[in-house]
Amino acid sequence: MIEKLIKKIEETNAPIVVGLDPKMQFIPKHIQEKAFAKYGETLDGAGEAIWQFNKQIVDAIFDLIPAVKPQVAMYEQFGIPGMIAFKKTVDYCKEKGLIVIGDIKRGDIGSTSEAYAIGHLGKVKIGNTEIAPFDEDFITVNPYLGSDGILPFIKIAKEEKKGLFVLVKTSNPSSGELQDQEINGKPLYELVGEYVAKWGEIHMGKKYSYVGAVVGATYPEMGKKLRLLMPNTFILVPGYGAQGGKGKDLVHFFNEDGTGAIVNSSRGIIAAYQTKEYAEFGEENFEMASRKAVIDMIEDIALALKNR
Amino acid sequence: MIEKLIKKIEETNAPIVVGLDPKMQFIPKHIQEKAFAKYGETLDGAGEAIWQFNKQIVDAIFDLIPAVKPQVAMYEQFGIPGMIAFKKTVDYCKEKGLIVIGDIKRGDIGSTSEAYAIGHLGKVKIGNTEIAPFDEDFITVNPYLGSDGILPFIKIAKEEKKGLFVLVKTSNPSSGELQDQEINGKPLYELVGEYVAKWGEIHMGKKYSYVGAVVGATYPEMGKKLRLLMPNTFILVPGYGAQGGKGKDLVHFFNEDGTGAIVNSSRGIIAAYQTKEYAEFGEENFEMASRKAVIDMIEDIALALKNR
Repeated sequence: MIEKLIKKIEETNAPIVVGLDPKMQFIPKHIQEKAFAKYGETLDGAGEAIWQFNKQIVDAIFDLIPAVKPQVAMYEQFGIPGMIAFKKTVDYCKEKGLIVIGDIKRGDIGSTSEAYAIGHLGKVKIGNTEIAPFDEDFITVNPYLGSDGILPFIKIAKEEKKGLFVLVKTSNPSSGELQDQEINGKPLYELVGEYVAKWGEIHMGKKYSYVGAVVGATYPEMGKKLRLLMPNTFILVPGYGAQGGKGKDLVHFFNEDGTGAIVNSSRGIIAAYQTKEYAEFGEENFEMASRKAVIDMIEDIALALKNR
Repeated sequence: MIEKLIKKIEETNAPIVVGLDPKMQFIPKHIQEKAFAKYGETLDGAGEAIWQFNKQIVDAIFDLIPAVKPQVAMYEQFGIPGMIAFKKTVDYCKEKGLIVIGDIKRGDIGSTSEAYAIGHLGKVKIGNTEIAPFDEDFITVNPYLGSDGILPFIKIAKEEKKGLFVLVKTSNPSSGELQDQEINGKPLYELVGEYVAKWGEIHMGKKYSYVGAVVGATYPEMGKKLRLLMPNTFILVPGYGAQGGKGKDLVHFFNEDGTGAIVNSSRGIIAAYQTKEYAEFGEENFEMASRKAVIDMIEDIALALKNR
């Protein structure tokens, strides 16, 4: 799956992933109204609105990008119907040829981590039958519990030829409260980066490991350092656009050959029609605003990599 | 809700919580067969088996204990039907008067953490309607992303008068890889403990905060230190029984007055019938084995607290 991701990035010339994080306030009124007319102001109504919103965006952009990253919290907040919309979105994106990174940030220990891994990447055994429950291609995981928490994910990822992205340095302002604390002269995120590089050796592709890292776009200097520390680690970079990261800040998340990273934008793409820059499209044509925002983002990053 | 938890612990004289982590291999054959006969070897069949298993255990033990802690991973691994079984379990336990601690270990940033908090503790707004999706009483959360990740959970918990347990020192062997690393002469888990104590001030009950901590039973010395460091923090203690913790190891997780902690056992209770100690009950009477295991655990902890 890491080879497929690399190939799709090459084909589209777009090292970007679109975050499908459908907050209610991003969803155009006409989609909400139609869903509520059918199901009422219920969790089912919300699930339907999310699903229709996602579908139109995916239809408008799937040919431009290699991957999407649905943020499960935005679905989970609508209970079971929300999780049904999540599953429909995962399946539909895969039908459209997109790689799906489930942004689930799960993390536990032993058989509990394994249960999450089975639920999201693997197949669960029921009697003599095996079924893939959510079936994403990659997921994000949290390292706070140490190797016991991560190795069960790698085990399942290896069986399924799928992958992980482990949180190393997150994009938020307070991420330093724990992650930047110095341990024997180096920050915690570097220690985690070293673990990720080591864990990565267990499940290697040709050049890059199936075990990647999450490093926030908002910390370009740390990204540069981590890039050198983890040369065979694919880096998922959140925080572009709405959170403040720009193309030129991101070049050092990539290796010299321009590979090894994929940059996420969520709100900046899926709610582009709500920004001044893309307001001309209007709410009715929200998906075309998203398409234009994707094209602009690809260009911004390509230009930055060219002028590196 | 923290006052309700304290009151229920007093009433039952049982500072314990039963982990409802229904792995397939814990579920007696007769329950599995009945569920599969109805739904086939499907996710729905698994969900039904889990739900029937939980229901029988809860019916057998609800009068003895204050709280249960379903581990969501064990449900999530069965996809949507698994999540339906989770929700049914939460609702049923609350009907029976039990406090429900959702062991979800979620953690993200800003509005994403808030979405998880809304999904599990709060109410989601759909048009002009507000609905509680999963509706647990407490949840566990991961601190790796810092205050940005935790404060949105506290905000929702405060609105709902519900609570959290933040991971501080987890019970697994490799928890020290990050959590024990020394920062300015003290381990990371102590730094996190200090944060938890500080976050706790935002949402206080009478004596204890609604923001609790998770500290593993397998690290009694660290538990003792953390108890002193966080005097107003309620501590959720996993790792009793199957993971190796014993009553006498746990006394220092409690304050001098015998309050301030709640000890979890999962496998040791729900799969008691599979152990030598409770084998006499047989698979058919699995729930009575669980009841006996609860009674023995209450006694073990009461005795340890008495002989402190």
